[in-house]
Amino acid sequence: MIRLACDYQEGCLPAILERLQETNLVSAPGYGDDEFSERARTLIREACKAPDARVYFLEGGTQTNSIAIHAMLAGYEGVLAAETGHIAVHEAGAVEARGHKVITLPQKDGKITAGSIEKWMEAFLRDPSKDHVVQPGMVYISQPTEFGTLYSLSELEAISASCRRHGLPLFIDGARMAYGLASEANDASLADIARLADVFYIGGTKCGALIGEALVVTNPRLMKHFFTLQKQQGAVLAKGRLLGINFEVLMSGGNYLKAGRHGVRLAQKIRAALIEKGYELFVDSRTNQIFAWLDDEDLKRIGEKAAISIWERRDDGKTLCRFCTSWATREEDVDQVLSLL
Amino acid sequence: MIRLACDYQEGCLPAILERLQETNLVSAPGYGDDEFSERARTLIREACKAPDARVYFLEGGTQTNSIAIHAMLAGYEGVLAAETGHIAVHEAGAVEARGHKVITLPQKDGKITAGSIEKWMEAFLRDPSKDHVVQPGMVYISQPTEFGTLYSLSELEAISASCRRHGLPLFIDGARMAYGLASEANDASLADIARLADVFYIGGTKCGALIGEALVVTNPRLMKHFFTLQKQQGAVLAKGRLLGINFEVLMSGGNYLKAGRHGVRLAQKIRAALIEKGYELFVDSRTNQIFAWLDDEDLKRIGEKAAISIWERRDDGKTLCRFCTSWATREEDVDQVLSLL
Amino acid sequence: MIRLACDYQEGCLPAILERLQETNLVSAPGYGDDEFSERARTLIREACKAPDARVYFLEGGTQTNSIAIHAMLAGYEGVLAAETGHIAVHEAGAVEARGHKVITLPQKDGKITAGSIEKWMEAFLRDPSKDHVVQPGMVYISQPTEFGTLYSLSELEAISASCRRHGLPLFIDGARMAYGLASEANDASLADIARLADVFYIGGTKCGALIGEALVVTNPRLMKHFFTLQKQQGAVLAKGRLLGINFEVLMSGGNYLKAGRHGVRLAQKIRAALIEKGYELFVDSRTNQIFAWLDDEDLKRIGEKAAISIWERRDDGKTLCRFCTSWATREEDVDQVLSLL
Amino acid sequence: MIRLACDYQEGCLPAILERLQETNLVSAPGYGDDEFSERARTLIREACKAPDARVYFLEGGTQTNSIAIHAMLAGYEGVLAAETGHIAVHEAGAVEARGHKVITLPQKDGKITAGSIEKWMEAFLRDPSKDHVVQPGMVYISQPTEFGTLYSLSELEAISASCRRHGLPLFIDGARMAYGLASEANDASLADIARLADVFYIGGTKCGALIGEALVVTNPRLMKHFFTLQKQQGAVLAKGRLLGINFEVLMSGGNYLKAGRHGVRLAQKIRAALIEKGYELFVDSRTNQIFAWLDDEDLKRIGEKAAISIWERRDDGKTLCRFCTSWATREEDVDQVLSLL
Repeated sequence: MIRLACDYQEGCLPAILERLQETNLVSAPGYGDDEFSERARTLIREACKAPDARVYFLEGGTQTNSIAIHAMLAGYEGVLAAETGHIAVHEAGAVEARGHKVITLPQKDGKITAGSIEKWMEAFLRDPSKDHVVQPGMVYISQPTEFGTLYSLSELEAISASCRRHGLPLFIDGARMAYGLASEANDASLADIARLADVFYIGGTKCGALIGEALVVTNPRLMKHFFTLQKQQGAVLAKGRLLGINFEVLMSGGNYLKAGRHGVRLAQKIRAALIEKGYELFVDSRTNQIFAWLDDEDLKRIGEKAAISIWERRDDGKTLCRFCTSWATREEDVDQVLSLL
Repeated sequence: MIRLACDYQEGCLPAILERLQETNLVSAPGYGDDEFSERARTLIREACKAPDARVYFLEGGTQTNSIAIHAMLAGYEGVLAAETGHIAVHEAGAVEARGHKVITLPQKDGKITAGSIEKWMEAFLRDPSKDHVVQPGMVYISQPTEFGTLYSLSELEAISASCRRHGLPLFIDGARMAYGLASEANDASLADIARLADVFYIGGTKCGALIGEALVVTNPRLMKHFFTLQKQQGAVLAKGRLLGINFEVLMSGGNYLKAGRHGVRLAQKIRAALIEKGYELFVDSRTNQIFAWLDDEDLKRIGEKAAISIWERRDDGKTLCRFCTSWATREEDVDQVLSLL
Repeated sequence: MIRLACDYQEGCLPAILERLQETNLVSAPGYGDDEFSERARTLIREACKAPDARVYFLEGGTQTNSIAIHAMLAGYEGVLAAETGHIAVHEAGAVEARGHKVITLPQKDGKITAGSIEKWMEAFLRDPSKDHVVQPGMVYISQPTEFGTLYSLSELEAISASCRRHGLPLFIDGARMAYGLASEANDASLADIARLADVFYIGGTKCGALIGEALVVTNPRLMKHFFTLQKQQGAVLAKGRLLGINFEVLMSGGNYLKAGRHGVRLAQKIRAALIEKGYELFVDSRTNQIFAWLDDEDLKRIGEKAAISIWERRDDGKTLCRFCTSWATREEDVDQVLSLL
Repeated sequence: MIRLACDYQEGCLPAILERLQETNLVSAPGYGDDEFSERARTLIREACKAPDARVYFLEGGTQTNSIAIHAMLAGYEGVLAAETGHIAVHEAGAVEARGHKVITLPQKDGKITAGSIEKWMEAFLRDPSKDHVVQPGMVYISQPTEFGTLYSLSELEAISASCRRHGLPLFIDGARMAYGLASEANDASLADIARLADVFYIGGTKCGALIGEALVVTNPRLMKHFFTLQKQQGAVLAKGRLLGINFEVLMSGGNYLKAGRHGVRLAQKIRAALIEKGYELFVDSRTNQIFAWLDDEDLKRIGEKAAISIWERRDDGKTLCRFCTSWATREEDVDQVLSLL
């Protein structure tokens, strides 16, 4: 069975396994105080051009989102997010479980705008009973979004400016950051992200790591005592070296971008084929996820050979599907699936 | 530097890395639906002689304890635990962060007794204002304990009987289970644990795994929809295969017991030497942690060559220290440290 | 200044103050174990024709909603509610603060339907990743709704049947229950509510009490140890007699219905006048809240004499306003405001 | 039955009922924006000589403690309190339910000392793994304590100085403040309390009010957006006037002190009689609670006429009992009980 359903179906970049092997019996302190984690933090600060950033390693996306958001909010605050944002729909209520409301904003192609933040804030500030409702405490966006679309640098700059005007820290979920950075359509670098966000994370799990996400805090006033909160929330590994080694390898030798480029190239090959053959795309994604409407015959034909993701069914009988590639996708598998269209 | 400070300072059993290598490019579903996890669950059910047990993989001890306890308790309930229990002292308030009080019982050598549970329950049931206080919802013990001591089978049977008499589910923290099972002083098998506890976990991180703990639920009425709670609490890995592979290897070919035996043998060598040389032991541990009172000169002499754990300082100037071995400890390192005593 | 902005702007039915006076020095046990609370509970059971119902007194609407919902849900569950439901918009994130997501359903005139529950459940049950999202745990509706509209008996029966089909307990927020029961448009009695809901509350604060809401639990399997949870959540009064006396008086001699009828009669007088004078109503409310679109001149003219509630401004310059009456509204005040239209 | 079991068994000072009566039909805004609450806040600021203090009204002690503590702590912080503190034993886990650990300190007669805070902090600061445990976030004490004892002004000054040295805000639970202020043994005024604490509350419920506690925030950097948090936690009354009127009356004309003096005088009469007749007191309380060890015969004889509180039974067969008086206790009742000793 060919798997194009998601981007976490294989192990990891071989270089990570090699590094695990060669360091296996090195004795090192626990909880992230090891030399590998330290090196990984340095590499990340350099890649972000943020020499003073604090870097923490966590295990997965839902965990990173919910704990970072919890650390950024007071009890009376909620987080503004696109109604399609991962935290609003696919995290089993992780933000709410930690006490906070996800306040949803309208979206287009998975993206919100500075304008939508301004409009919401204007209505909030005018509301005579605003003390009776959840206070806005921060803004959450994903880059790339859950639909594979990208915020342009100017869009990010506008959102960041709007956030700062209202005193709302900006958090960027970068679960698939590698596929954003590697996209030809992208004009926002890791250093731009670091400059415009207050807190963000560089995704590992979906971008070639065996495990791990790297949380980067560039705003020095935020997230005090984060290690203790991370421990309390169950997100500190005794063998922190595992996370450190993953990011030491990812952030070395261009590995992160390479992993991203491979996934994006194959996804764009799928996109081009779909367009050429007249399929209706859901959004115009230039990263590693391609959403298209397929009819039942297509679904059946593809389904015999390949696993893709089913999103939802429309009244006209078409089904929204996702083709998702990764650093590990094989070109011959893509070609075989395309031959079925 | 020789490290005898804790049991999570090296990577993992080489067989785990080999298995990661050979399966790396196998494509498999995410979130624990992969073949490796499935096999690991089967091996665990067999080892526990509990064919109907549900098995979940999590990433670390604090995470496993706090989420399992949260899943087992209603909002108005707390957990009874030894005042020295890991959840009471070393988890950054993880149980409280999920809304529950840790109700502490007196302990001896890190252990509580059926008698102390009975005594507490008797006082509780007699209290005219018992509806105004946290309701007892479950009992937590560690096997081996935080001090390396072991509950005997008869002690476990008495505790389990007391729990069942009062309708209190019993949870056993087995972070260092391998070192308990491998101890010559132990008479409680994994099947006994499975029979006497309602929920427990088999520790991986400290017992040779790269990462992971295996939570075993033998009481079918408990922990409904646990996967969703696990996800919400940030404890589900997209690449669940990583956890599955760790336990597939640990539970095969006697690897788990072998890892435990190595650690216990070296720790007992330390214990014997300490006794022979007249050091005062804190408790009589027959597993992989040895606690002894050292004076400043010993500390200094050892400290130049080896890292051990410092616990607390006594008025007479002696310091309580822990020597901790693992599956990876080298005998020549132990010998070198012993030569310094 | 005439106040028609809300229904909690005066003290309480004079009979309540008289009863407080005559019982003031009677010595009674605390925490609701007093004779007044006991009598109030009996009167409520009789009024609901629910001899086995458990009755608890709480202090206000947000408190009652959030604690009852917390008691009804497991950690992995959320509550289905109209997107305009009070818990979704006006309670400062009280449900989320206790760990649960409010899952919003589309509404019309403040009401959801059995059909919308069925449609949501159907999509949920079909979702291949349904274990990754918040599980539906209960349904919340308000009677009357936040817009003053009423569910008919047949609508309530359909919703209740849908809930029972899916194992979802039904909770009814009756903050303004008196104005619903007193409406000529109403055909659902308190006994119907008690029969169709699993848990509901009879509002006191907005219906003539000085303080208090009466939570009625008719499903015996729900809300175990509720007193302890209520205490923990800060909602038990040491002087529980205060709440008991309020409901003892409200539920005696037809006081509750009388309070409701007075408010409804005056609100309907406003409604009739607005219709007669050609104002556009927002919904057709037959209870004590009347929503209408006013232009700036109306607003200014009325604003000089009376306080009404401002809801929102429309692009055509009209403003949605609420006229709200209560048991205490004076007819001459209503007449004076109507003369300004 | 004579009730000397607690101090919330009657209604309230008659002047409060009179004021409720005379203001009953005055129309006023909700949620504490009424004129009565405003006047009460002014009177409290004057009594505390704290013109800039913020004042909030809440409904009961457990509610006030748990919400204030929640507002004062970050997620990773806990509260230091005496092991006998009300929040540690009698509030059904209210602090833990909001996510925070109660860190207990040893006590004597219900009191902690500056020394015990210093000793705890010293051990904490020296702990090499202090980032792995709950961070100290504030200190909680009660004045008078749960045993009726009082902190002297110099003890309070030392505790406050210790708190400030370590950056720990000091919260004082004043549920029975009137009985402390009215004690001949007291030398700490309300202004002293306001100066030495960062946040405290003036108890109403147990000191003559029908309902209510007044939370006073003197540290301007603490408890931002407290109204929203209070609402979210279910502790805002729509008819906030009820709380305002209670405190308007309590804080006028010396009513608060008068209520306290009456209770203290009668309790001290009991104390003197117990001492004279050779009973063993548990602590030497100079306020309105007297704890003494009684034998079974005493208990039986008294129990036929009066309800007192039973605390615990000792091995020698004596039972610890509490005699508790209030603003409403009748001298003839006290005399009758004393005649039974």
